Amino acid sequence: MSRYWSSLVHTLTPYVPGEQPKLDNLVKLNTNEHPYGPSPRVLAAIQQELHDGLRLYPDPNSDRLRLVAADYYGLKPEQVFVGNGSDEVLAHAFMALLKHEQPLLFPDITYSFYPVYCGLYEIDYRCIPLNEHFEIVLEDYLQPNGGIIFPNPNAPTGRLLDLQAIAALLERNTDSVVVIDEAYIDFGGESAVRLIDRFPNLLVIQTLSKSRALAGLRVGFAFGQAPLIEGLDRVKNSFNSYPIDRLALAGAIAAFEDEAYFQEKRAAIIKNREWLVEQLDALGFETVPSAANFVFTRHPQHDGAVLAQRLRQDGIIVRHFKLPRIDQHLRITVGTERQCELLVDALRRIVA
Amino acid sequence: MSRYWSSLVHTLTPYVPGEQPKLDNLVKLNTNEHPYGPSPRVLAAIQQELHDGLRLYPDPNSDRLRLVAADYYGLKPEQVFVGNGSDEVLAHAFMALLKHEQPLLFPDITYSFYPVYCGLYEIDYRCIPLNEHFEIVLEDYLQPNGGIIFPNPNAPTGRLLDLQAIAALLERNTDSVVVIDEAYIDFGGESAVRLIDRFPNLLVIQTLSKSRALAGLRVGFAFGQAPLIEGLDRVKNSFNSYPIDRLALAGAIAAFEDEAYFQEKRAAIIKNREWLVEQLDALGFETVPSAANFVFTRHPQHDGAVLAQRLRQDGIIVRHFKLPRIDQHLRITVGTERQCELLVDALRRIVA
Repeated sequence: MSRYWSSLVHTLTPYVPGEQPKLDNLVKLNTNEHPYGPSPRVLAAIQQELHDGLRLYPDPNSDRLRLVAADYYGLKPEQVFVGNGSDEVLAHAFMALLKHEQPLLFPDITYSFYPVYCGLYEIDYRCIPLNEHFEIVLEDYLQPNGGIIFPNPNAPTGRLLDLQAIAALLERNTDSVVVIDEAYIDFGGESAVRLIDRFPNLLVIQTLSKSRALAGLRVGFAFGQAPLIEGLDRVKNSFNSYPIDRLALAGAIAAFEDEAYFQEKRAAIIKNREWLVEQLDALGFETVPSAANFVFTRHPQHDGAVLAQRLRQDGIIVRHFKLPRIDQHLRITVGTERQCELLVDALRRIVA
Repeated sequence: MSRYWSSLVHTLTPYVPGEQPKLDNLVKLNTNEHPYGPSPRVLAAIQQELHDGLRLYPDPNSDRLRLVAADYYGLKPEQVFVGNGSDEVLAHAFMALLKHEQPLLFPDITYSFYPVYCGLYEIDYRCIPLNEHFEIVLEDYLQPNGGIIFPNPNAPTGRLLDLQAIAALLERNTDSVVVIDEAYIDFGGESAVRLIDRFPNLLVIQTLSKSRALAGLRVGFAFGQAPLIEGLDRVKNSFNSYPIDRLALAGAIAAFEDEAYFQEKRAAIIKNREWLVEQLDALGFETVPSAANFVFTRHPQHDGAVLAQRLRQDGIIVRHFKLPRIDQHLRITVGTERQCELLVDALRRIVA
């Protein structure tokens, strides 16, 4: 507390990210990172940029990266926005596109940064409960609103909506922006990017942090029709001219250029997830159907917080949220084959 | 324009950064970059981080970097804030510490991003004219205010205020935050960091983009007493958990560890500046006394815009601002010895 703070600062409840432990010998399954690491071509591309040229500012508009991402998805460069991780992209989207007189709508169980952004930008919001199966019921969003946002697949549940359902929502909600936050889309869903040409109010958010294994590099995207992207650019250029450094730009461009690596590792993670869910079933866990690189699971006879604590004692970190409706669940990142085995072995010892 | 924009977006006038030309054969003296490049130890430290570990999120709090920067200045880690370039740090400072009922005060001729931040956060501001010598007259700031901010040395003038003058201001202005933006302090001034323990309302901003030759890496700092830093952290953690990527963290830490390189290159730039000013004098230019890595200069017989255009034809880019009071001036970055010679040769041909 300080009398020098702006009045807003006193009211903020900042986001608390998953722990980044400084111990190396932990099995880290708590922040949905990619278990295999980025393409060797990404590392090589960054290597190429590692020279005296770091003395120069990066391209403030990330033009080459916008072009490469646009090509990847069959969009135009002016339909692509780039930010310092999808969290920064989301922040700008809240300020530029989701702050209106009517309340913003999002699920009661979802990415817990959304209400934090609303606090930062003084946006009124309303949480729409998931149904008892943790499904988003899109009919519930057909009410006056200043915007709609949800992840697809949703986090931390992992549940996916198909594109038909999203298109149906967009057909009926035309007066406000609908943001589909696709951090996890590559692990089992179909991107709403292909709906962009049909809907001027659709914004799709993606990140290189999950399926491209570059959480350490901080690059995120928004895709949408040019006027939405222009709104984001106006805010970005009133905030920070150069959010993406030269090394991140080079690595991000290369990440889109190694499709074979991307597909191979994505398939491996999906396979590991399927194996993990089978094993959890066999141990009596109840797991929400997941299209993400994590599973959301509970055991009817074991308290969620206690399970997380017991795993930690075994050197395995998972995420547990002390929140209504989900405090019995664990959100567990899908790791390598070996990490999945270690997890299942530990859980077997605990629940046996 | 879009009906989907928040009302604020329509009102913004974004900042326009200096051009980052995509041609390699230009003498680029327009954005005050360091002419020599970063320490080899910075490149080596980044190299060490260039591996599969990029799959993991960086430390959201930049703890090691805060510690190293604190040690460098004899501060405590809780007196250090880290952001994605000093532009992001400034943005957070405007929102967290400079938004109050009374208007923010800054010079009429200064970093042109300040009024842009005021637009973004709806902060009332008042510009205080520099005197006819382009000097900041601190007595003029002794009026009701919600904060005071200016660069020291000022940009684009290059003029320095000494620490005594800043301390005198802080002694008389105790009810609002005073931000000293020290992007260029290492080229001839003394940092106000040493005043932090005396003044709870002093915030000092620095960057690795200029004197540390890392514009391409995007790392900036704020230094101040812990409650001010906590205010910045509350906003940062409501905006983006991980603004500094793993490679930038590694490079930034190493930049503070190679003091010999830093001092050698800083001295070289100061020497080049002194030579350049002498040559400009000889050509009839009138140059504002500079403590920065740029000079602000005009020629009584030659229009500023025309000079900039003629230099561009010779492959040399400098910065010209089409703004009241300074549209006859050029802001010219101090380059290498060779770049300074090329500039002087070109100017000699133009004004002869």
